[in-house]
Amino acid sequence: MKYFTLGIDIGGTTTSYGFFDLSEDYLLYGNSIPTRPSENEHLFTARLAEEIKKVNAEKFNQYSLAGIGIAAPSVNNILETLENPSNLEWGTVSIISMMKEYFDVPMVIINDANAAALGELKYGAAKEMKNFIAVTIGTGLGGGIVLDGNIVNGKSGFAGEFGHVIIEKNGRKCNCGRLGCLETYVSANGIRRTVFQLLSQSNVQSELQNIPFSRLTGEMISEYAVKGDPIAEEAFNITANILGRALANLTACFACEAIILFGGLSESGDLLLRPTRRYFEEQLLNIHKGKVQILKSGIENGMAAVFGANSLILNELGNKLSRDQRNEFHLSN
Amino acid sequence: MKYFTLGIDIGGTTTSYGFFDLSEDYLLYGNSIPTRPSENEHLFTARLAEEIKKVNAEKFNQYSLAGIGIAAPSVNNILETLENPSNLEWGTVSIISMMKEYFDVPMVIINDANAAALGELKYGAAKEMKNFIAVTIGTGLGGGIVLDGNIVNGKSGFAGEFGHVIIEKNGRKCNCGRLGCLETYVSANGIRRTVFQLLSQSNVQSELQNIPFSRLTGEMISEYAVKGDPIAEEAFNITANILGRALANLTACFACEAIILFGGLSESGDLLLRPTRRYFEEQLLNIHKGKVQILKSGIENGMAAVFGANSLILNELGNKLSRDQRNEFHLSN
Repeated sequence: MKYFTLGIDIGGTTTSYGFFDLSEDYLLYGNSIPTRPSENEHLFTARLAEEIKKVNAEKFNQYSLAGIGIAAPSVNNILETLENPSNLEWGTVSIISMMKEYFDVPMVIINDANAAALGELKYGAAKEMKNFIAVTIGTGLGGGIVLDGNIVNGKSGFAGEFGHVIIEKNGRKCNCGRLGCLETYVSANGIRRTVFQLLSQSNVQSELQNIPFSRLTGEMISEYAVKGDPIAEEAFNITANILGRALANLTACFACEAIILFGGLSESGDLLLRPTRRYFEEQLLNIHKGKVQILKSGIENGMAAVFGANSLILNELGNKLSRDQRNEFHLSN
Repeated sequence: MKYFTLGIDIGGTTTSYGFFDLSEDYLLYGNSIPTRPSENEHLFTARLAEEIKKVNAEKFNQYSLAGIGIAAPSVNNILETLENPSNLEWGTVSIISMMKEYFDVPMVIINDANAAALGELKYGAAKEMKNFIAVTIGTGLGGGIVLDGNIVNGKSGFAGEFGHVIIEKNGRKCNCGRLGCLETYVSANGIRRTVFQLLSQSNVQSELQNIPFSRLTGEMISEYAVKGDPIAEEAFNITANILGRALANLTACFACEAIILFGGLSESGDLLLRPTRRYFEEQLLNIHKGKVQILKSGIENGMAAVFGANSLILNELGNKLSRDQRNEFHLSN
């Protein structure tokens, strides 16, 4: 019998997972399921568990599960709960307790942006770095901080909530209840709001005029921008400008050597990345100009947080064991 | 012969210093000299050295100098230089080299806000804390970060430049060349600009209408606010609102347990502190509400950075020695 560990990244729109061979520490299989906003946490957990059991039975029936690392938004890492994640209507939930109903193995939980930072530090673009920040731009916007080679949690475990930095005084209403939070501008939801603001202000022709707010996604805006739609292009430009300023502000705070961008919106080719770099440099304090890289994730298919969550459970299971010792560990289980 | 160490805090308006008994580690004497914007760095250093030699000769002639810790703005802690401090027209200077012309003793240099944080951590309001930020509000605005009990320097040594977070898009012109930096609003210079903005917009009577821009100081605005001048009161209110928002943003980033305020403007009774606390709570992310303290320095007379700089040179000289060992160290010198 072989063993695998599971890394899971619960997002507001998509939940990704990866099966990792425990003794060799490599990705066996990765995939995702949609996260349905209409579904409560119990139905979601049941559907996720069913998917994992099915993949295990159909593709990897020689493997047994040894442990699960879960990345999720708004994690209280003391109580190991999700606390009112702003893009899921679950309230405060213990996802670990719910998953334990389906899998009797060790589990750990970590904030999604911290998981992405950890994945990048161990396997990706930040392998040589000690000071960087990770910014996940998905349904919302989250952040992870690595200083002197360590993840920063802060007193309460909530360090790195960059999505809730107020970037526009009296700006857009945020799910957190306040006004002008960064994620109301820079996120899949944010750029959608920017498109509709532009449609309301402009009189140029755009195919985006035919799409209702509820159906518009970040991917669609990317596709229209690639096709040269002026509203979609301007929406990316505005998003990059605000993101550039926010990242310049974070650099003033952290003096990091790099900022790594993750998540759906950051993967839209260079649509976001190139103008963000330009606005970032323009708005950067002199002492940092030309010295701070903005990078895309070094882990493909948006799996950085899956890799990071998996590295955390590997750590929990004893990743310091050599491969031989690890095989012994398996036999004794 | 007894030995003393010297802590110095070079500010844009005032330079404070303290004589500390080395073997007992307590403040013998503290005072300050004005920092004259018109004076170049050589004349300034000569005047500072003369002051120290005079105090040593007149008050503490039984003491010899063992070392100097210097706190200053915009310190590059790799090169040990001040790099274009925005409120001193010195360019990039090696204050240590210049001081060595007068004193042949070990010297260390540290960013002023980091020094204040260190002083607070060792002797002041943060003795029991592991995660806090220090914000110095003087001529400009600086920051120090303590995470897990350690000062955060960042890759380049410039972490904590909170004064250069862009808080107002296309806002006031900053000495750094950009627009809308926090210190153009929240600092002695910033509140002066706010007073003149209010005078330009309002038609209420205010004694501040009789004072030219060049003569107006933070202390004067405090005095008029205490007397009930409506422009001075509103200037403090606006300053507190912007500071409250900036501190709420920093809390979203750092998840700190406390924010400690230093410097001239923060010492103006409760004029700034009380409304800042209110605006901070109003603008704070829910998960942090009621959990993060805003405190005044626990070290009197604005001497936190002097204490911090001194603790750094003590460290350099071997602060881990017991008192007896320290006395031996003295004898061997």
